[in-house]
Amino acid sequence: MESLLEKLCAYSQSEIYPFHMPGHKRNVGALGREFPNPYRIDITEVEGFDNLHHAEGILKDFMQRAAEIYGSDESFYLINGSSCGILSAVSACVPRRGEILIARNCHKAAYYAVLQNELKAEYVYPQEIESLGIPGGILPEDVDKRLEENPDIQAVLIVSPTFDGMVSDIKKIAENVHRRGKILIVDEAHGAHLPFGKDGDFPSSALKNGADIVIESLHKTLPCLTQTAILHVKKGYLTDTQMEKLKMYLSVYQSSSPSYVLMAGMEYGISFMERQGQEALARLKERLTDFREKCRCLSEIYVPGKEIIGSFGVWDLDESKIVMVLRHHLASGKWLLDYLRSAHKLEMELCAPQYVLALTSVMDEQEGMERLFAALCAADRKVLENNQADALKMQKISRYNKKGSPERALTIFDAMEQEKAVCPIAACEGKISGAFVYVYPPGIPCLVPGERITREIILQIEEYLYLDLEVCGMADSREYGLKVLKESVEK
Amino acid sequence: MESLLEKLCAYSQSEIYPFHMPGHKRNVGALGREFPNPYRIDITEVEGFDNLHHAEGILKDFMQRAAEIYGSDESFYLINGSSCGILSAVSACVPRRGEILIARNCHKAAYYAVLQNELKAEYVYPQEIESLGIPGGILPEDVDKRLEENPDIQAVLIVSPTFDGMVSDIKKIAENVHRRGKILIVDEAHGAHLPFGKDGDFPSSALKNGADIVIESLHKTLPCLTQTAILHVKKGYLTDTQMEKLKMYLSVYQSSSPSYVLMAGMEYGISFMERQGQEALARLKERLTDFREKCRCLSEIYVPGKEIIGSFGVWDLDESKIVMVLRHHLASGKWLLDYLRSAHKLEMELCAPQYVLALTSVMDEQEGMERLFAALCAADRKVLENNQADALKMQKISRYNKKGSPERALTIFDAMEQEKAVCPIAACEGKISGAFVYVYPPGIPCLVPGERITREIILQIEEYLYLDLEVCGMADSREYGLKVLKESVEK
Repeated sequence: MESLLEKLCAYSQSEIYPFHMPGHKRNVGALGREFPNPYRIDITEVEGFDNLHHAEGILKDFMQRAAEIYGSDESFYLINGSSCGILSAVSACVPRRGEILIARNCHKAAYYAVLQNELKAEYVYPQEIESLGIPGGILPEDVDKRLEENPDIQAVLIVSPTFDGMVSDIKKIAENVHRRGKILIVDEAHGAHLPFGKDGDFPSSALKNGADIVIESLHKTLPCLTQTAILHVKKGYLTDTQMEKLKMYLSVYQSSSPSYVLMAGMEYGISFMERQGQEALARLKERLTDFREKCRCLSEIYVPGKEIIGSFGVWDLDESKIVMVLRHHLASGKWLLDYLRSAHKLEMELCAPQYVLALTSVMDEQEGMERLFAALCAADRKVLENNQADALKMQKISRYNKKGSPERALTIFDAMEQEKAVCPIAACEGKISGAFVYVYPPGIPCLVPGERITREIILQIEEYLYLDLEVCGMADSREYGLKVLKESVEK
Repeated sequence: MESLLEKLCAYSQSEIYPFHMPGHKRNVGALGREFPNPYRIDITEVEGFDNLHHAEGILKDFMQRAAEIYGSDESFYLINGSSCGILSAVSACVPRRGEILIARNCHKAAYYAVLQNELKAEYVYPQEIESLGIPGGILPEDVDKRLEENPDIQAVLIVSPTFDGMVSDIKKIAENVHRRGKILIVDEAHGAHLPFGKDGDFPSSALKNGADIVIESLHKTLPCLTQTAILHVKKGYLTDTQMEKLKMYLSVYQSSSPSYVLMAGMEYGISFMERQGQEALARLKERLTDFREKCRCLSEIYVPGKEIIGSFGVWDLDESKIVMVLRHHLASGKWLLDYLRSAHKLEMELCAPQYVLALTSVMDEQEGMERLFAALCAADRKVLENNQADALKMQKISRYNKKGSPERALTIFDAMEQEKAVCPIAACEGKISGAFVYVYPPGIPCLVPGERITREIILQIEEYLYLDLEVCGMADSREYGLKVLKESVEK
């Protein structure tokens, strides 16, 4: 059997161009310094190298330096991804069995935080950009309305930018949240580059706009290694007890043996951005503007740009994320994904029913953008020429595009504690879900334990399966069964 | 400011020999294959590379291969250390607000599992090898007695081998636990090499002896990267619901973006052990026997060997851990640690009041053992010659060597929810602890939230501080204050 290492080495030498995370794009040339064999620098907490969970030396200095760079009161390195940051932030800000408002398009880590703390979760839904089949932004007035209706909510968790680059009006949302004395946590996992751009190049960061806790994945958009992230705090609205709890939960959710290889990569990437980030982002911005300009000639594929700002809660757009929509439903996202990979050796970040997403970063080269544009031109012709089977598929499914808002019958925790049964998906209407069901990536649950399954949700999951997207959380993906609460079947 | 990467590179070129984890000892020569720059192979879940949280391809194959090698029913790669394995195992096997029996010398991750699940924790204490100041093993009859007294306990969590290599009689413990219909989880973080030795070279692994869930740190004793671990399951006594919960919690406690660099290191290390482990362990065993033989000539430093088996609950000894005890209290562990580092450039794993610990692995060279022996000979003379100040220090503290068993006033969770106050350590007797207090390494709490602080505990913590050990969890390490429950101060 070929080893994982051999497979990874072979992959790194292939011609495949990565339009996906990690943000370093394996472009070791652009990084400026050769990183050694990780076994050479993989140490433990020896003399002079501090202790992440009790930082008093070199790691404390680096995290203080990061706080200065980012303008936070305190910043914490995370070696277990943004996931552990979201879990720690929620655990610190909302007491057990308390109440939280979360954007329904949050990553599953947010739902795990709800489970772990036995919270009652209220949801605020992003607007839908219906013509494109993309979730948009969260409206400040929607947040306000939900807070008005549920005065016991203790904190709000919003994702911005989204996977697709939609940025919500964090400033307005923070004002609303703070006026009611609550805490705003922003999952900025997809926006770690935002603090480094010059005004106007990219949207400004959530921390600048008044969020209390901001979690950024360093590996998604910066030249840092996978599984690294950073959590920033502005202390104004947090109590001392919440700060203490935050520090404790960061110890709970992270290994007591953090990797110095990962930490060295974080410090390396952040210092790269500090020195060269603004300039590199300006170059990226220029390439992206040029790319979107050229894409106007395409008839079937539409690459949304700043023109969508102002519509559907989208307050700003992170243009480094390239959404490629199949405008007239003549092919599926999956078709475009496969076509770009097989015919052009371009690997994308994800595909949705109607679009494909490419991620760019400061580590991309002009060559990549040119290859992508050439491939899109070819795809644009291909869609028109000979893709009738897929077109029929898309026409068949397009009517299900509207998502329903499932009703919560039980909290996630209570549902997870109950006995489950497997139910064929077609017979699930009215049953109560016993699992998280989500397409990965992006890892946003379309169904959460404790939610009553609607016809719309069933159609949506069937559509994902029909379009060959990777649906996680099904009882058995071949049999098309869902895990539901046993009680809800017997009733 | 010198970067972390630069510091790590400089450290890797220094003459310092690592008698500490990680088990690869940065000995890239002995690994057999050069590992590339991690940025070259750091990818995400692209086509052909599977998804750790929903493994159906290459990662599933590797984990199945690991299960075959280890003889488990299922094995899971962990990219957030043994910590996340312990948290997941406990969360799966003990319902919220349930009851667990844990060995008091468990790592803090075990206590975090108690906190997270709001458990009531009963403790079983390891025997104390009093003459050496080392915790010994857990007696099967002690486990049985605690289970008899507390019939609501749902699972038992034991650490074996301990940091210092003491192996308990897991077979007998498993029989007792299973007879009562409970689950046995073994934290074998320090024994990942045990499954690879031939009979008699090293103790047999907990999985072979009947434990239900076994968690092993791959980085501690095998040639794997820091922060990697593996969790093995034998399904016999686990229900399907517990298995499902286990899988879910492994997703909760681990990043949704697992590092392929870490995973490649795991597969690499495990396959190295599969091919060459038995032979390499036999060589290591020979060196260790020879080393202990030679150490008999030392008058002040005692390196316990197999002769301690049978005393104080020690059922077997993992000889790869070298404990160096200052026999006549003429110097402290801290003195020996500092001396070995400064005069001989040997970095140890940890020091306790009365001893120092060196970790060896299959990646150690004969040169290391020779340097350590030469250094111990020099230290042995040094202790007698001119270490009178330290000797006085040790004589002053030796009377505090006996640990008290603090009484639990509240569960860890309930204590963490209460308001805290800072109390000068000398005035803490009778107050209730509001924090975990532990020396790191090893990270075993001597005081847990909710425990009533005894005079013995105060003296023990004062002794740690006096001996310059790194005490974590104090309110302010300079002011010698402890965090206690506010209520317990006001009373």
